[in-house]
Amino acid sequence: MISRDDLNPHLLAAEYAVRGPIVRRARQLEEEGKKIIYCNIGNPQALKQPPLTFLRQMLSLLEYPQLLNHPALLSLYKRDVVGRVRTILDRHPEGIGAYSESSGIAFIREAAAEFITRRDGIPASADHIILTDGASKGAQSVLLALLHSEEDGFMIPVPQYPLYSASLELYGRRQIGYPLDESNRWHLSETALAESHARALAEGTRPLGIVVINPGNPTGGVLSEENIRMVVRFAKGHGLSVIADEVYQDNVYEAGQRFSSFARIMHAMGETGVPLFSLNSVSKGYLGECGHRGGYLELRNVPGDVLAEFVKLQSISLCANVPGQMAVYVMVAPPRPGEESYSSYVEEKEAVLRELREKAEILAKGINSIEGMSLAIPRGAMYAFVRFELPPERGIDVAAMSAEERRAYDRRRDSEYCLALLEQTGICVVQGSGFGQEPGTLHFRTTFLPPRAEIETMVAKLKVFHEQYVRELVEA
Amino acid sequence: MISRDDLNPHLLAAEYAVRGPIVRRARQLEEEGKKIIYCNIGNPQALKQPPLTFLRQMLSLLEYPQLLNHPALLSLYKRDVVGRVRTILDRHPEGIGAYSESSGIAFIREAAAEFITRRDGIPASADHIILTDGASKGAQSVLLALLHSEEDGFMIPVPQYPLYSASLELYGRRQIGYPLDESNRWHLSETALAESHARALAEGTRPLGIVVINPGNPTGGVLSEENIRMVVRFAKGHGLSVIADEVYQDNVYEAGQRFSSFARIMHAMGETGVPLFSLNSVSKGYLGECGHRGGYLELRNVPGDVLAEFVKLQSISLCANVPGQMAVYVMVAPPRPGEESYSSYVEEKEAVLRELREKAEILAKGINSIEGMSLAIPRGAMYAFVRFELPPERGIDVAAMSAEERRAYDRRRDSEYCLALLEQTGICVVQGSGFGQEPGTLHFRTTFLPPRAEIETMVAKLKVFHEQYVRELVEA
Repeated sequence: MISRDDLNPHLLAAEYAVRGPIVRRARQLEEEGKKIIYCNIGNPQALKQPPLTFLRQMLSLLEYPQLLNHPALLSLYKRDVVGRVRTILDRHPEGIGAYSESSGIAFIREAAAEFITRRDGIPASADHIILTDGASKGAQSVLLALLHSEEDGFMIPVPQYPLYSASLELYGRRQIGYPLDESNRWHLSETALAESHARALAEGTRPLGIVVINPGNPTGGVLSEENIRMVVRFAKGHGLSVIADEVYQDNVYEAGQRFSSFARIMHAMGETGVPLFSLNSVSKGYLGECGHRGGYLELRNVPGDVLAEFVKLQSISLCANVPGQMAVYVMVAPPRPGEESYSSYVEEKEAVLRELREKAEILAKGINSIEGMSLAIPRGAMYAFVRFELPPERGIDVAAMSAEERRAYDRRRDSEYCLALLEQTGICVVQGSGFGQEPGTLHFRTTFLPPRAEIETMVAKLKVFHEQYVRELVEA
Repeated sequence: MISRDDLNPHLLAAEYAVRGPIVRRARQLEEEGKKIIYCNIGNPQALKQPPLTFLRQMLSLLEYPQLLNHPALLSLYKRDVVGRVRTILDRHPEGIGAYSESSGIAFIREAAAEFITRRDGIPASADHIILTDGASKGAQSVLLALLHSEEDGFMIPVPQYPLYSASLELYGRRQIGYPLDESNRWHLSETALAESHARALAEGTRPLGIVVINPGNPTGGVLSEENIRMVVRFAKGHGLSVIADEVYQDNVYEAGQRFSSFARIMHAMGETGVPLFSLNSVSKGYLGECGHRGGYLELRNVPGDVLAEFVKLQSISLCANVPGQMAVYVMVAPPRPGEESYSSYVEEKEAVLRELREKAEILAKGINSIEGMSLAIPRGAMYAFVRFELPPERGIDVAAMSAEERRAYDRRRDSEYCLALLEQTGICVVQGSGFGQEPGTLHFRTTFLPPRAEIETMVAKLKVFHEQYVRELVEA
């Protein structure tokens, strides 16, 4: 019989808090009949965000093209959806039930390249795009392809989306955390980058690249152009590749803020030596099509033979799922002005984004009304990384702790807090230590995806819970 | 700038011949206007196999449930499809655009467990089933989870489907090839297993498991119950886990042959100590839905804490794509007798399988009419592993070669042969060395998926090509 101890120790060590013990406990409670508000994961359609009509109509016709021959049913569909599907089937007659090329269907990769050009005003090539099963698989491919040996590591933000820490652990490679500056709306600090890079070298780690998540998960931060330029210079100076996780590029809410892609900034800087791996996804933005697992990886500043190895890696598990590829197609080639679906597409898209913007504000306002909690209104993404304070525990001298001990202590405290919150209120959020946080600070991540009435209820419950929790600690 | 030499050497070393250089050359030729007969990959719908109506109608409704409200719908869709979709949306109201649980939607896993019970007459548990993006991802999860260190290896058949060799290489783990017995319709030989296991130990390799592909890829073999019992005893005797790649379980053609699952045989033997990881997929069988990337992994004889680690591994990339999960649902819970779609579903299914059976015979008959080529009619799967002979090359003394040299020599010869075949005839098959073969033998793998007229054309062209190729070698 096999036992847990027989498994790959890197798998045992990997942690993915977004679906960890607190979420498992939430499912148990739900099965027992308790109402749970799931704020643990960016899963918009599970929280009633409607899918976009154009995309779903297109997919329904691709699944069952015989609908095209049925005039009565087709009365539900606008002409450009039907036209789009006919063009797809013409260019790709095998339909969505066949494996595609390893890197994805050629005309979709071409459309993705045109999308990048339209977005950034820079050249892009379909040959440098690989369609993936969501962005996660793209990120894992880059880590697997670039990291050689046990000493190799990637710089990852603290806090970060735990896909990166978990995948590095899984492949037996090293995490080099660099702190984001919470006081500067979660921007990267050059000093902090330099310090963590130097510390890694001193510990015998070989840093090969840096992950930047922009807009930020779990932070909701949006990076300025200048901050991105700094990262590019830093990467160049230290010979690092860049993974730009840009899956929230459409989720920017604050007036005056805009998403700046690493590709655009690098192009403007004339930077052609820093390898760039950019990720995009249909799961986030305004599509919210998580279940379809669609995304793409764009490679820049890599030669053809490196690209070929990435395509080979993709080929080993054949290709990304084809309905997901088709969802990417809509993301990168939405209805255009003049087409019949254009205005309703834009309307549905704007409604989703407006709703998210307003819910970010409602959440932040509510959080800031709670004593001992603080949150700048998230500028982007779908998350708030809420900072909270707890009174000291009697008999525990935090000043005497090493950074490592302090981290472990914080981890116990934020986990206990989030678990108690779940048990008492049904609110499911993820402890800050699941993403990483500065020793001595406590956070939790919540999405602002639930319907606004639920967010209001949630904030009210959170306030009552937090005050009670603090009172009990003080009285203990 | 990054160069190929900077990449993970395990990625550089990995080979996946099914989509390798010959296939890339085929695409080039196709772009230049040459007609290519793609026999390199088991991709039924790319070769005009029709998808099953029930499945595609169900998926079209799940993509766009508003169709359900259209009165004209029932003139095109049978009532049980509509009823099925209503039940799904009732049990899973978030629809197919949301992430599911990491291990897959619960009612689909339950249906998969019932499917196994119905198929094999044995108990099965939904908790031991993980829905995956095709079987490939399931296989990779098992290898990643079980293999610790560089000395660890898995026994894999020779010839094998190169997913296994490529993934082991990618993870930096060892391949322990065991030869299948071509003279015994590709069954496993206990002596051969024992020899390769002993050789591995002698070389300092730690064999942790064995992969068995049944029905066989690339061989088309179907294993007898007795042969499977032997493998189970062997695994038990040597403390091995078993990966049973059973994605072709519905593709058994020869009268008197039937598919026997490892799960059923182990259950009948009362074997509860050998960990079993069984794979199934919607890509093969009669569905042929490769593009949907759906499949499942069933774990047996593993304790709960091991299972939990597999679920965690799945959670890191969230979940399998949900349309693919829904395709698995149809595979494991097809229309039942009495339901309106039952007879047409069975008819379509039987038509696909009948066609495959007949094409296997046409191919084998044609191949055997070529001097220097031989092939037993494939009993299962979608492939023929055709053995062919070439006259010796002048000035080359094969008798003086080591096994390693002989393998390299054979690899050059079968690759040159397949490339010449492609260039001269447009027939795209994969060289035997891409799967592994006994030194001193030459093979190629071809599918028997093309329409029968194309198979007939292909065999005729192959005959002319082969005779000419041999003549030129003799005259050289």
